[in-house]
Amino acid sequence: MITAGVSGFDEASKKSRWLVGVSGGADSVALLHLLVEQGFSNLVVCHLDHRLRRRASTEDAKFVKRLAAKLGLVGEIGSADVTQRMRECGESMETAARNARHAFFAECARAHRCPRIFLAHHADDQAETVLWNLLRGSHGLKGMRGEQVLTLGKRRMIIHRPLLKVPGRELREWLTARRLAWREDASNAEHTVVRNRLRHQILPLLDEISGRNASQMIARALEGNRALEEIESWAVAQARALDPRGRLHLPALRALPAALQRAVLVDFLKQAGIGGVDRALVSRVTGLLDANSPPAVNLPGGTSIRRRAGRLFIEGIHNEE
Amino acid sequence: MITAGVSGFDEASKKSRWLVGVSGGADSVALLHLLVEQGFSNLVVCHLDHRLRRRASTEDAKFVKRLAAKLGLVGEIGSADVTQRMRECGESMETAARNARHAFFAECARAHRCPRIFLAHHADDQAETVLWNLLRGSHGLKGMRGEQVLTLGKRRMIIHRPLLKVPGRELREWLTARRLAWREDASNAEHTVVRNRLRHQILPLLDEISGRNASQMIARALEGNRALEEIESWAVAQARALDPRGRLHLPALRALPAALQRAVLVDFLKQAGIGGVDRALVSRVTGLLDANSPPAVNLPGGTSIRRRAGRLFIEGIHNEE
Repeated sequence: MITAGVSGFDEASKKSRWLVGVSGGADSVALLHLLVEQGFSNLVVCHLDHRLRRRASTEDAKFVKRLAAKLGLVGEIGSADVTQRMRECGESMETAARNARHAFFAECARAHRCPRIFLAHHADDQAETVLWNLLRGSHGLKGMRGEQVLTLGKRRMIIHRPLLKVPGRELREWLTARRLAWREDASNAEHTVVRNRLRHQILPLLDEISGRNASQMIARALEGNRALEEIESWAVAQARALDPRGRLHLPALRALPAALQRAVLVDFLKQAGIGGVDRALVSRVTGLLDANSPPAVNLPGGTSIRRRAGRLFIEGIHNEE
Repeated sequence: MITAGVSGFDEASKKSRWLVGVSGGADSVALLHLLVEQGFSNLVVCHLDHRLRRRASTEDAKFVKRLAAKLGLVGEIGSADVTQRMRECGESMETAARNARHAFFAECARAHRCPRIFLAHHADDQAETVLWNLLRGSHGLKGMRGEQVLTLGKRRMIIHRPLLKVPGRELREWLTARRLAWREDASNAEHTVVRNRLRHQILPLLDEISGRNASQMIARALEGNRALEEIESWAVAQARALDPRGRLHLPALRALPAALQRAVLVDFLKQAGIGGVDRALVSRVTGLLDANSPPAVNLPGGTSIRRRAGRLFIEGIHNEE
């Protein structure tokens, strides 16, 4: 059901203010109309012109501006030089575009005092993301969340993706049946070649080979993975490996199965605000469980994790003078 | 390293008897030579002629028989009419071939009093299996195990797959470098069209699109999934939802996160020997946690699971006279 994600909000929620990201493409235009149809009355239509497709980009922005006005909604049209950002920050086009968009959304959130935003990612975007992560060596299956907290500087936003289970095709059909217009190619302009090929070559081929909807099957597998992650969080809390001073208690840690030891360590580093925790680092830190190994491992950002008196704890930045 | 899986056995293990499944194709021929090279001296070469490719099948069997003799090993050559089995048991070709092979291996195990068998599945087989399961709606990622207990009737066998991390290409290169012969097409004769297309179309395309080895990336994701499953097993045991009489304690169960409730229920049904536990059944059984729902759910095999006095338990087969 196309409306499953956008229905089920109570009247108070529908009357409160929401941001909604609208590129002008079919997906986000459908989302906008769906929300209006469901009775959301205080929407702020946010559109960032990425200036990636010259004249077409400007036309997209105009289209969204007119659409917002027609629906009697506030339109926030921003503009960012993604190409410049790529150069200056050394980011890929996809990363630069996403970061520029997020910064713009955060600005809209501040201006309208509204930390909630609807985004139009759908089932095909999700399947593509899962495959993309898989090919980059994800730990299990990783996709987008239906609800996600995004921290930008000191500001927190909540992203809602109510269409994550709806096939993109259904959104187009829904628009067409209602004779609603959209801008072709307005979305995904900054998509990488890899992502585009996953979407336009791999997913249709998987559909054809299996005779099933591959996106749906991937979504189902992802759900299974999510259930396991939910259990992992419970297990990490249940492991009770922290002593009263918040240090990891080694005998407790050693009593756990290896996979849970790693999960507890990853959580410990995360809670301590350590960034850049990758496979290699986790493996070095896990080495500390061996009493005969060197007693400390350097962490990114100048800190380290040390083993002493049957405990593991983080040491602050050393003064090297 | 191609030998990583077959090395690391101690001398006693190498001297004891092992079965090894050899189709005559590159993968299993490489496995056989690798085992011999590593010093395994008491191998029983097991080959089942599936009679799926007429004359070529017979030639495969002859090739394996000669190879075993040349290596001074016992050869067990069996034959099964897979086509007949398909008709009689209503099985797909792939299922019929696998079941016939397993029955043959069990026979060899009995005859040689040896419950251990090496099979030559490699990294590409694994990637193909993971994709195949994914397209059939697996709960997370599901692949083959490096060690797997197979129960056939009352008999238990342990399957060892020492090549599960080796790309198929490396096995062929290894054979070619040593001028060792194999029978092209001897393996995978019964492979479905879907599996063949996953292997020959999807995996190479994923390699090309991502510029990486997709099989390796899939293996890495699978490893992450396995770690989560290991944690799930620990969490199910830790949940302590069973009362002293082995019944599920509802208040304990209700205190768990939803995903763990489901995992505990699935484990409870499995331990009770209930087969055919699918998504729909688990969802019906989970319904029993709601005190206002009907107090029993029918299970496959004529039993049912009942809620009474704050407990869930399995009831035996009813006499309906």
